[in-house]
Amino acid sequence: MHVDEPQSSEKRGTDVVHVGLLGYGNVGVAFTRLIDSQVEAIALRIGHELRVTRIAVRDVAKPRPDSALSDAGERLSGDAASLVDDPSIDVIVELIGGIEPARSLVLAALAAGKPVVTANKELLATFGAELLSAAENGGVDLFYEASVAGAIPLVRLLNDSLAGERIVRVMGIVNGTTNYMLTSMSEEGCDYAVALSEAQALGYAEADPTADVEGFDARAKAAILAGIAFDADVVASDVYTEGITAIGASDIAFAHKLGYVVKLLAVAERVSDGPAPAVAVRVHPAMVPREHPLASVRGAFNAVFVEGDTAGELMVYGRGAGGMATASAVLGDVVAAAHHLSEETRGRAVRREQVEVRPISELRTQYYLTLDVKDQPGVLAAVARVFGEHHVSIRSMEQIGLGGGARLVFITHTALEADVQATLTSLAGLDVVARVGVLLRVIGPER
Amino acid sequence: MHVDEPQSSEKRGTDVVHVGLLGYGNVGVAFTRLIDSQVEAIALRIGHELRVTRIAVRDVAKPRPDSALSDAGERLSGDAASLVDDPSIDVIVELIGGIEPARSLVLAALAAGKPVVTANKELLATFGAELLSAAENGGVDLFYEASVAGAIPLVRLLNDSLAGERIVRVMGIVNGTTNYMLTSMSEEGCDYAVALSEAQALGYAEADPTADVEGFDARAKAAILAGIAFDADVVASDVYTEGITAIGASDIAFAHKLGYVVKLLAVAERVSDGPAPAVAVRVHPAMVPREHPLASVRGAFNAVFVEGDTAGELMVYGRGAGGMATASAVLGDVVAAAHHLSEETRGRAVRREQVEVRPISELRTQYYLTLDVKDQPGVLAAVARVFGEHHVSIRSMEQIGLGGGARLVFITHTALEADVQATLTSLAGLDVVARVGVLLRVIGPER
Repeated sequence: MHVDEPQSSEKRGTDVVHVGLLGYGNVGVAFTRLIDSQVEAIALRIGHELRVTRIAVRDVAKPRPDSALSDAGERLSGDAASLVDDPSIDVIVELIGGIEPARSLVLAALAAGKPVVTANKELLATFGAELLSAAENGGVDLFYEASVAGAIPLVRLLNDSLAGERIVRVMGIVNGTTNYMLTSMSEEGCDYAVALSEAQALGYAEADPTADVEGFDARAKAAILAGIAFDADVVASDVYTEGITAIGASDIAFAHKLGYVVKLLAVAERVSDGPAPAVAVRVHPAMVPREHPLASVRGAFNAVFVEGDTAGELMVYGRGAGGMATASAVLGDVVAAAHHLSEETRGRAVRREQVEVRPISELRTQYYLTLDVKDQPGVLAAVARVFGEHHVSIRSMEQIGLGGGARLVFITHTALEADVQATLTSLAGLDVVARVGVLLRVIGPER
Repeated sequence: MHVDEPQSSEKRGTDVVHVGLLGYGNVGVAFTRLIDSQVEAIALRIGHELRVTRIAVRDVAKPRPDSALSDAGERLSGDAASLVDDPSIDVIVELIGGIEPARSLVLAALAAGKPVVTANKELLATFGAELLSAAENGGVDLFYEASVAGAIPLVRLLNDSLAGERIVRVMGIVNGTTNYMLTSMSEEGCDYAVALSEAQALGYAEADPTADVEGFDARAKAAILAGIAFDADVVASDVYTEGITAIGASDIAFAHKLGYVVKLLAVAERVSDGPAPAVAVRVHPAMVPREHPLASVRGAFNAVFVEGDTAGELMVYGRGAGGMATASAVLGDVVAAAHHLSEETRGRAVRREQVEVRPISELRTQYYLTLDVKDQPGVLAAVARVFGEHHVSIRSMEQIGLGGGARLVFITHTALEADVQATLTSLAGLDVVARVGVLLRVIGPER
């Protein structure tokens, strides 16, 4: 570093903020390296010297790569509880993941009046209200920017920039793995299995991809998003969830022909205000109009689109995962915590209210669906009768020849999900229907 | 409002924050209406009751629309200085615009220890360092989220979320008028004059469009962006600026053919760190690769793309102008100021450092340029010789027939701007060159 920097740091009245790190995986190593390598530069920028003073791991003896070991130095400890209690530690960074012991350690830190920064989406999506209430009781900050969409500053956007705003809807691409796969299927025309093995080869998908492709990762993030956007106590199990496993290259090609791209969306909507507030929260693949800003989010990137009464439409875009991007979000939170500590203050307290979460059956939107049928006279009439009986109005139908049968591709007018589901059940019972295919909800106005 | 709201507000310990508003134009009316109409809802959300208690205007007797008058009620005053001095006013919101009297009033408020929220891009782009230093001396907040890109929370992104981040480049579409025009030219194939009169008819461009189409509005925002991104004292006059008036439909069509869209960009780059920090700041139309997130920003929307060392690529997108969008950004700042007042604290102090601003002549990029030439043998050889003499290497050339002559369209390899400018000067002196056309800088790697 430069000769004049320590002097400048002192001029700004640098004090040292000691960080206690719980968990030393991918993000923990990246975070430690980030701080270690830039102590002076960060001090110059923010006016505080940040140090990762202690690091708690489950098993100190566990073999680690040399680079991780040299970053950890003498700081490793097997006793997380003692680290939380250590009076020389100013800020706790929780990167263990999962519910326990993370939850107990975070609660202990907050009760002891220590600000906590966490990247733990599972914890926030299950015990968010409890943790925020513990932070309020302890009079300290709980920051969790890294829990939702990696480096994208979404929590700060919704909590701070839009604090005065009535938010109507939040809609995001919050899982990089599935967006990478859907982008490949769209741009290369490959099928689901090929896209998955390509994503696995590149490290975007895990060997067991269930959490990503079934939408479970996005579900936790949807719950967190709904919580922040509406100050609502929404948990992961409240979120209706569908993954992308049923989607084929032909669905994506058909969507493209109609001017749409297929994206896995996490959607949180305000359904009603007032004495009985209600929200709708769901994760499912959707057809997004090509002109929509979310449509151009490619590869492993994430983006969240926010609609507010006054601000109008906003979108934030960036890297939703990866050690460095997540470490960057954690660092932003630690900087805020350090500033608040030195000012003996804290962020605006947030309380999560009880809200009703409306079931998916009440959704009203347009639908894309496919049916594989026998190629014989009268099929379309039989199928159309079922739609009509359930008050689902067809906007367009196209027939594609298949070997020994035909595929019917429908787009409906705006309809009630309950009616569409009843339609699908009835259709599945028809003799002429060989297979009910994928159901995609369509975003945007009718065309 | 609902019966239980006042009770909930009290439970949250609501206190009243009195806002003094300077200036009562488009944004001032929208802001006043926003607060007036949502007093209780905002109090519920943020825990403070916000009131626009006094409004200073130049001329109280000036005729105003009824709706504006009813919003203003008895609050109008012709004496802005007395409003700033009024001990019952907690926060000053400056929406006068321009340099004076805005600058003196803001300095007086800061000196009196009153937090200031401003949407004044001209003021920030000229006296930003002075105002921030006055805020630091007064120990109060100066917030200016609404000065850069309307509702887009860019200042908070760069100042707070990325406080620990080394930012490398900020690149934005920060003028809605020109982006609307360029989008029309691109999607409808119309020429500059048609796009302009269409934008004027829709209220996106003013009768005198100079500030927008010549890039002056974007220049002020580029200076503010550079200031925040690099903690640097950059003023509008430091910014190299070109507008969009020279761009024709044929340039946009040609860019499209090559996989690019044409956007007016504000770019701020870190050129060197250390004891002699240097930045480059410029506004000019540019060719942006179609896959780049900025390429899909259409119509009057704004977006800013940020590259950080650790966070990677981020983008924020939204409405960059308009009374409501700007009022929303002002409200977000007032909420932060109110929270800080009640906590007797303030945001992280920021000091602007002196930096060298490198001239455009040092830029290295690829260039698109057009020449109208006489249609005679040997022209291309003469032209190519000039490029070669100035060390500018041609990547591709295409000839388009024109009546009585030809247009040559060049894309260069990466070259030094000084060499390209020298090339253009020499080319203009050739007998065979009828006209040197537009010069567009190309964003992204060579293809």
